[in-house]
Amino acid sequence: MSRTLGRLLATASLASLAVTALAAAPAHAAPTRDEPAGQAVVQSVTLSADAALEIAQAAMREAARQKQRVTVVIVDRSGATRLVVKGDGAGPQTEESARRKAFTAVSFGKATGELGRSLTGGRPSIADIPGTLFLAGGVPVASGGAPIAGVGVGGAPSGDIDEAIAQAGLKAVAGRLR
Amino acid sequence: MSRTLGRLLATASLASLAVTALAAAPAHAAPTRDEPAGQAVVQSVTLSADAALEIAQAAMREAARQKQRVTVVIVDRSGATRLVVKGDGAGPQTEESARRKAFTAVSFGKATGELGRSLTGGRPSIADIPGTLFLAGGVPVASGGAPIAGVGVGGAPSGDIDEAIAQAGLKAVAGRLR
Amino acid sequence: MSRTLGRLLATASLASLAVTALAAAPAHAAPTRDEPAGQAVVQSVTLSADAALEIAQAAMREAARQKQRVTVVIVDRSGATRLVVKGDGAGPQTEESARRKAFTAVSFGKATGELGRSLTGGRPSIADIPGTLFLAGGVPVASGGAPIAGVGVGGAPSGDIDEAIAQAGLKAVAGRLR
Amino acid sequence: MSRTLGRLLATASLASLAVTALAAAPAHAAPTRDEPAGQAVVQSVTLSADAALEIAQAAMREAARQKQRVTVVIVDRSGATRLVVKGDGAGPQTEESARRKAFTAVSFGKATGELGRSLTGGRPSIADIPGTLFLAGGVPVASGGAPIAGVGVGGAPSGDIDEAIAQAGLKAVAGRLR
Amino acid sequence: MSRTLGRLLATASLASLAVTALAAAPAHAAPTRDEPAGQAVVQSVTLSADAALEIAQAAMREAARQKQRVTVVIVDRSGATRLVVKGDGAGPQTEESARRKAFTAVSFGKATGELGRSLTGGRPSIADIPGTLFLAGGVPVASGGAPIAGVGVGGAPSGDIDEAIAQAGLKAVAGRLR
Amino acid sequence: MSRTLGRLLATASLASLAVTALAAAPAHAAPTRDEPAGQAVVQSVTLSADAALEIAQAAMREAARQKQRVTVVIVDRSGATRLVVKGDGAGPQTEESARRKAFTAVSFGKATGELGRSLTGGRPSIADIPGTLFLAGGVPVASGGAPIAGVGVGGAPSGDIDEAIAQAGLKAVAGRLR
Amino acid sequence: MSRTLGRLLATASLASLAVTALAAAPAHAAPTRDEPAGQAVVQSVTLSADAALEIAQAAMREAARQKQRVTVVIVDRSGATRLVVKGDGAGPQTEESARRKAFTAVSFGKATGELGRSLTGGRPSIADIPGTLFLAGGVPVASGGAPIAGVGVGGAPSGDIDEAIAQAGLKAVAGRLR
Amino acid sequence: MSRTLGRLLATASLASLAVTALAAAPAHAAPTRDEPAGQAVVQSVTLSADAALEIAQAAMREAARQKQRVTVVIVDRSGATRLVVKGDGAGPQTEESARRKAFTAVSFGKATGELGRSLTGGRPSIADIPGTLFLAGGVPVASGGAPIAGVGVGGAPSGDIDEAIAQAGLKAVAGRLR
Repeated sequence: MSRTLGRLLATASLASLAVTALAAAPAHAAPTRDEPAGQAVVQSVTLSADAALEIAQAAMREAARQKQRVTVVIVDRSGATRLVVKGDGAGPQTEESARRKAFTAVSFGKATGELGRSLTGGRPSIADIPGTLFLAGGVPVASGGAPIAGVGVGGAPSGDIDEAIAQAGLKAVAGRLR
Repeated sequence: MSRTLGRLLATASLASLAVTALAAAPAHAAPTRDEPAGQAVVQSVTLSADAALEIAQAAMREAARQKQRVTVVIVDRSGATRLVVKGDGAGPQTEESARRKAFTAVSFGKATGELGRSLTGGRPSIADIPGTLFLAGGVPVASGGAPIAGVGVGGAPSGDIDEAIAQAGLKAVAGRLR
Repeated sequence: MSRTLGRLLATASLASLAVTALAAAPAHAAPTRDEPAGQAVVQSVTLSADAALEIAQAAMREAARQKQRVTVVIVDRSGATRLVVKGDGAGPQTEESARRKAFTAVSFGKATGELGRSLTGGRPSIADIPGTLFLAGGVPVASGGAPIAGVGVGGAPSGDIDEAIAQAGLKAVAGRLR
Repeated sequence: MSRTLGRLLATASLASLAVTALAAAPAHAAPTRDEPAGQAVVQSVTLSADAALEIAQAAMREAARQKQRVTVVIVDRSGATRLVVKGDGAGPQTEESARRKAFTAVSFGKATGELGRSLTGGRPSIADIPGTLFLAGGVPVASGGAPIAGVGVGGAPSGDIDEAIAQAGLKAVAGRLR
Repeated sequence: MSRTLGRLLATASLASLAVTALAAAPAHAAPTRDEPAGQAVVQSVTLSADAALEIAQAAMREAARQKQRVTVVIVDRSGATRLVVKGDGAGPQTEESARRKAFTAVSFGKATGELGRSLTGGRPSIADIPGTLFLAGGVPVASGGAPIAGVGVGGAPSGDIDEAIAQAGLKAVAGRLR
Repeated sequence: MSRTLGRLLATASLASLAVTALAAAPAHAAPTRDEPAGQAVVQSVTLSADAALEIAQAAMREAARQKQRVTVVIVDRSGATRLVVKGDGAGPQTEESARRKAFTAVSFGKATGELGRSLTGGRPSIADIPGTLFLAGGVPVASGGAPIAGVGVGGAPSGDIDEAIAQAGLKAVAGRLR
Repeated sequence: MSRTLGRLLATASLASLAVTALAAAPAHAAPTRDEPAGQAVVQSVTLSADAALEIAQAAMREAARQKQRVTVVIVDRSGATRLVVKGDGAGPQTEESARRKAFTAVSFGKATGELGRSLTGGRPSIADIPGTLFLAGGVPVASGGAPIAGVGVGGAPSGDIDEAIAQAGLKAVAGRLR
Repeated sequence: MSRTLGRLLATASLASLAVTALAAAPAHAAPTRDEPAGQAVVQSVTLSADAALEIAQAAMREAARQKQRVTVVIVDRSGATRLVVKGDGAGPQTEESARRKAFTAVSFGKATGELGRSLTGGRPSIADIPGTLFLAGGVPVASGGAPIAGVGVGGAPSGDIDEAIAQAGLKAVAGRLR
């Protein structure tokens, strides 16, 4: 993470402290908490494939309701693809833009729209990190206080619509993320 | 698509509403319009190879008339190459710049020059999406109200000349795009 | 397509002629059939996003039934991704192997297992073409006598199981491919 | 996985059945075993960074003892890098060869030497899958009956020495993998 | 060039000596022939963009006549793209296979079919050189005894048909290559 | 070329018109000037390998004189590498930075320092074209009024020193470029 | 190096001259100092693998102390990887961001935080050079007055914390770098 | 290194033992020999840029004498480029084939022709390692019993001629490699 984000966090209001804490503890799970000393493994939590499909379908339904032609991508905390679905008529740029939004959201534990609004456009910034994209439309999936996946949507004429579609997807599994 | 473009659309005049609608409905064809319920396929429309060659030849003739040494690239709505022709003496950067202009035009359903003029230069913006280039010289090919291909031209000393060459190509098939 | 496949087709029995014809006419749709002379566009048919999701879910159910941990990838006739879903615990090699099987099936209009059995292992062969993989587990989705998409599955300990899972996915939309 | 490996497994002796079962159940953990119905997450197990460092150091000690100049790479079950250490004077090819051995071992849940001995050299085979390398020197790290990481070593004049060095690394954490 | 091709040339009959000489003198033009001593530049000859378009159109006409759906690629002696045209309904693998056939033909100054028939399938061979493909369908364009471009065709069910289409293209400019 | 450069050219003083003309006519040679009608080939001029070596050695001598540790790259008008030499102790970034400066100089027919001074830093601009770098240190090699190669130097603590080294190289062949 | 950095160095105070000299003399070792005339080799100094492991472990201990989840990467003066270790729960963007910080530090012989603070955000600048990243968290390892390796850390919510972790690693070998 | 090469070494005659030992001890220099305990650095030896230029020029002279049009590439023991020079009229495949031969020679410390003759063509083998090419034309540059660079030549109609050209280059610095 960067100087730019660091400054952003430093100037954040108290109201966003919970989110800040999330960014400061981005882990599958706390490996030191409940591991017996000397164990060579750590437990982690991943989004299930079933849940990924539920998110994608809910997002695609919302996109249809809003008559948007989008692509949805879900990546896990290692950056590996969990799901891609390209909607009918979605543009050729949508797979990569959705993927990068998902990647960015799971990397920093925040919605890409929120992160992007804090970037001034000057360089250097975290926007220089390969694989990232700070346009609205990416949201993190959190479990146990840590991001375990990112959902990215691309293709609507405004990032805010992309984000609303991603949030609709996320809502489908809310409450079952332990 | 991005916050930046979203804002751009929000502030667009009524006169450009038709174009805005085009951007908001970027599809090969409307899959829900005339598909029987339950059908697993959607109809789409693509530029024919013959038309691609006609566009390229008309563009190359215009480039010769203007004594410009350019490359012309046409990509379809999936982002796949339909045509590339590199003019005699065109620079080594022209294939990729023409390709990206074509890709950008078919992605957003507008000329790249128009899109580029709306970008302020600040980041983040849609210019961060991989594969795009917002210099003038890319124009969309539309059919049935949706972009089906993009024509990109690179190599002239000004993007406006590149765009004029691309438009000359497009003109060769105008009226036969249904 | 290659000398190797050419020979394979030349020695194929009459029983496989229908399939051979499919390979010889791999198109979204026949552009010359019903296009008015001079039209600059051709109609094509693509698998819908809904159908892609149905295929993926049916394939994942079959994988669960067989206790296999696999990834399913669907690509369209332009080679673009339509869907990826990585099952819980599927290996890191499965996304790319499933993608290449899907790509190969839609490229040649046949199941990858059938194609692979015809390759002798000598080089040069069509197995040298970038993006292909001739292990069983890829099946074409055909409409109107032409491949419109490919479904690829990777991760089971045998390609035959991968193919059975892909076929189970395909079955979910059979009869609705016009 | 491929027809080739399928055949290999089919002809494997009873003695190797345990290993075969491992290959047939390659997962971080069994997600259906202890997840409450409806949960959107699955538990998985990863090698800790401390354990990765212990493996690397033990492997480098063994390499020094055998006067070999090698690179050690550890990747997790998602294919992501956990550790790379390039020994003094190790060749430029060793990073990628060690990485691919590690990737192959964690993908198929077996030592690359064992897998490689079963390949006849004919194509197509699993050796065509991108990212794999079937030379000896890669060993899987298993926990709970499933591969969670791969350790790859490259640089010795024989793959058997590479494998012995990898095994020496693995030994350092044996018994603590639960 | 490789041991394999070396052997091939060594055993070639006298009848093919002219072709062998071509392979042994692959140059844009003879730089020592007419350059004043001390000149820092050499003259070379390239296929014109007009000629590239003529070749492509003649090849596409032949493909239509044979009812084949193919892609045609032309590359120059530096390996740079001069022309790509993807026919209606051509498969997703055809752009890269046609490109590699064109690249191989201009690299070795012979038709890829002829080169491929001389490869035994054993490794190492020139088929290991990146960017090459030794399936029939690539033909060199020669001027002044040296290859100046390569024409590659991919998509027909047999490499021999691909080559016939490429030859039909080449014929369109024969006699005007000086 | 871009709107940005277009504007730059539009506002250039008369004194720079010769250079502007160079940018507007970037070709190996004028193909229409002296080709018999119907010829399928065009003559072009390339820097000889001997001249490339002379340039590199003169540049390296100048670098030694200035106690700079640099890499020199020369590319031709097709973008292909003609020469790379990495000086003793030159940094790992120098090969790519020198290559991009050379590529940019031969693409636009001007020194990269001059081009870069005209860029305002706003986006979009020609600096977005892949493969370019607008830091000082790249100079074009021109023959017959057109750029035929680019020389790029990277590694000195200031781009102006890099450019002086490139110019020292160029001087070694000046007067022999016809 | 760029105009931007050049200007930065030109305006630097006397106090930073030692560091400037370091940037101006970035070499493994001085090849002209003690090589007999005519020798074809130069001596250079590299960080040992043991030292790389010591640095990584010290950095990981500091990260644990600060409860940060980071990745540490060390590259040598040729840009080749010496070490990567990804901490438990570190984000997917950390491997590449740490690698680029290490690359940048060894390229320019300064901490990335210091370099980044001197960049104004305008383009063109050295931030356009491929492989670089000018966020804090990268520090050079120097020996004999020249950078021989770079240590990069990524993953903390502020670049200053990343840099403190990198410095803690460096401290572990300080005094033994001759 | 592989099982295949291991076997090759095992069956090598006594006469080749010196070379075998070279392969078994591939290092810049022996780091344990003369380093004070606890030192964090190791000394290594690299080919000087001057020597690289001398090798390239001698190789190009030999190529001219044999009327061959080739590319010469030299890489160091880290795999980084030291020199590339592409001869007039050399084919587009020659840069990459020469680079891979150089890479292979410095990786395994033997001529690529010798290594290639020992490969049976079966897979898996060391020919599967990325970046390698086992065609004749690559020779190692050794100093102090270890490979410090590789010289690769590509473009002649036979690998044996490529190798002779590489050896002529190497001869130019023989006796000055300490």
